[in-house]
Amino acid sequence: MGSVDAERKTTGWAARDPSGTLAPYTYDLRSTGPEDAYIRVLCCGICHSDLHQIKNDLGMSHYPMVPGHEVVGEVLEVGSEVTGLRVGDRVGVGVIVGCCRSCTPCKSDIEQYCSKKIWSYNDVYTDGKPTHGGFAGEMVVDQKFLVKIPDGMSSEQAAPLLCAGVTVYSPLNHFGLKQSGMRGGILGLGGVGHMGVKIAKAMGHHVTVISSSDRKREEALEHLGADAYLVSSDEAGMKEAADSLDYIIDTVPVFHPLEPYLSLLKLDGKLILLGVINTPLQFLSPVVMIGRKVITGSFIGSMKETKEMLDFCEEKGINCQIEVIGIDYINTAFERLEKNDVRYRFIVDVAGSKLDRA
Amino acid sequence: MGSVDAERKTTGWAARDPSGTLAPYTYDLRSTGPEDAYIRVLCCGICHSDLHQIKNDLGMSHYPMVPGHEVVGEVLEVGSEVTGLRVGDRVGVGVIVGCCRSCTPCKSDIEQYCSKKIWSYNDVYTDGKPTHGGFAGEMVVDQKFLVKIPDGMSSEQAAPLLCAGVTVYSPLNHFGLKQSGMRGGILGLGGVGHMGVKIAKAMGHHVTVISSSDRKREEALEHLGADAYLVSSDEAGMKEAADSLDYIIDTVPVFHPLEPYLSLLKLDGKLILLGVINTPLQFLSPVVMIGRKVITGSFIGSMKETKEMLDFCEEKGINCQIEVIGIDYINTAFERLEKNDVRYRFIVDVAGSKLDRA
Repeated sequence: MGSVDAERKTTGWAARDPSGTLAPYTYDLRSTGPEDAYIRVLCCGICHSDLHQIKNDLGMSHYPMVPGHEVVGEVLEVGSEVTGLRVGDRVGVGVIVGCCRSCTPCKSDIEQYCSKKIWSYNDVYTDGKPTHGGFAGEMVVDQKFLVKIPDGMSSEQAAPLLCAGVTVYSPLNHFGLKQSGMRGGILGLGGVGHMGVKIAKAMGHHVTVISSSDRKREEALEHLGADAYLVSSDEAGMKEAADSLDYIIDTVPVFHPLEPYLSLLKLDGKLILLGVINTPLQFLSPVVMIGRKVITGSFIGSMKETKEMLDFCEEKGINCQIEVIGIDYINTAFERLEKNDVRYRFIVDVAGSKLDRA
Repeated sequence: MGSVDAERKTTGWAARDPSGTLAPYTYDLRSTGPEDAYIRVLCCGICHSDLHQIKNDLGMSHYPMVPGHEVVGEVLEVGSEVTGLRVGDRVGVGVIVGCCRSCTPCKSDIEQYCSKKIWSYNDVYTDGKPTHGGFAGEMVVDQKFLVKIPDGMSSEQAAPLLCAGVTVYSPLNHFGLKQSGMRGGILGLGGVGHMGVKIAKAMGHHVTVISSSDRKREEALEHLGADAYLVSSDEAGMKEAADSLDYIIDTVPVFHPLEPYLSLLKLDGKLILLGVINTPLQFLSPVVMIGRKVITGSFIGSMKETKEMLDFCEEKGINCQIEVIGIDYINTAFERLEKNDVRYRFIVDVAGSKLDRA
């Protein structure tokens, strides 16, 4: 604990420009404040939004940028006011690392909706310095944004839960869709969608994967354990499934018509959008009025929900389907992710990688 | 009670073709079945959807058609199994007069969402004969679809509550928006919108009327008692009101962009669509995701909610702003309604009109 006040350097892999190519980058970490923990990164998942950030797809990127927000680390040091965390604990860091603590969302334990939230990377911390993510040797993080990883869960399995997992769990929790017996649809079978199938099945739901083609049928039914598979262009199948679902988790990140999916929902059914789409989506008002259907969206989840979700996943023995890679493979991994060539999440073994050479 | 089995004739005012012109029309009423009441119509409100129906705007009209679904009548006769209603009682009839009674919505007392519901007019009853509405001397209606009018409420005041009133009340009830202190917006100040202001104010809400022009400012603030008035093209005003509303009741029946209104909603705020619009509405997914906002709709309300709403309106002394007319004025009234030239509801004094001559 002697070095709590010391600033330290760490090395991560940063993008320097919108080409998005990552390479070693050494930078200062803030000293471990009273509420902070200094952690050594063990592993970190690659999320599709990392791809948007490194390539400045949203026009909001600042370089150099060390991405990564599905981080599992080991606590090396804690500040004087840290409670509930000890040196040696395994902890997770997700999408945000700060919030105002005084607004309505913060006071309601849904700090992900705080308008002053601080992103894990590509943001500016309260000390005025840039935040950097989990593709790095170490991080300093406020205790509020650290969650203990359950003992029975491997670090590689825990990593994708910290963003993809809680992104699915939070709306099911918030909209009263956790109880068993629900009938759910998962639209889009990427990192978040595959997590959706796993979590919904573990909740005891009947899960239908909805896709634009027949290509992932076997994968969905045989490997992920979905109960049904529906191709959206199959008119007879879609008609037969009308009014049958309590919810649809829609992870498709590009424009798509909503009517076909709204028609699958029961009375009071919910279409939950998780994909950031900058082309307007469309629907007809009578379609929502007549069945009192709900179109809504959700953004990651709270720290409280993250804890709940990790415990739930450990209890249910949920295994994400992951591909573990070294940091030297990360640029290739981003290229493959862009082509959807991954089942379903890349996890970088940060602790097992040499970070200081490309 | 001797004539329970007799079929009777009645005279109403019917449209014969898509010109929508109403004129006297005499037809048979079914005999009063065990569960039916035979009622004399006292008055009936004119709803905007009557206009669509008489003109075949939705392509589903059958002629001759006697419209009218905001009916207050007096019970003349009851069937042998009718309970809770006696000769002389004042009763209301709304938008539907039948349902299957066995589906999930019916069993959940939200029979308005039954897929086999029978409309008060322009539909076919269980006996295979057309249903006809309230611009007529008499009706025969199943007791399930009759609601007692509270003693302290005039028939003319009760009529518009049976459709416009419950259309607003039901979503506020269902979506947990009844408690005082809520901040609501009313978009569109027609029959339903004006009812929305009255009911929301009576619930103790802070009510903002949102309009495309300044034209109705005085009306909204001085006469209807709204707390604030917002012109949607006033960028500064809209910006100032961002993130301030728990809900918006959107009664606009034509295409309009949703983003400006979604931006007015707080976290978890609800945009409730009540207007049937056959042009697709549009929104951007991040706008709903970041504030977990809800776009939904609602269709009239249940008989249970209608009862509750009538009691609520009586208790609160809600007065609709109405214009009482004779049946001989009904065609002019429809013309004026088409031009939005009514504040805010025409009520036809049916009992005080000569129905058998135009």
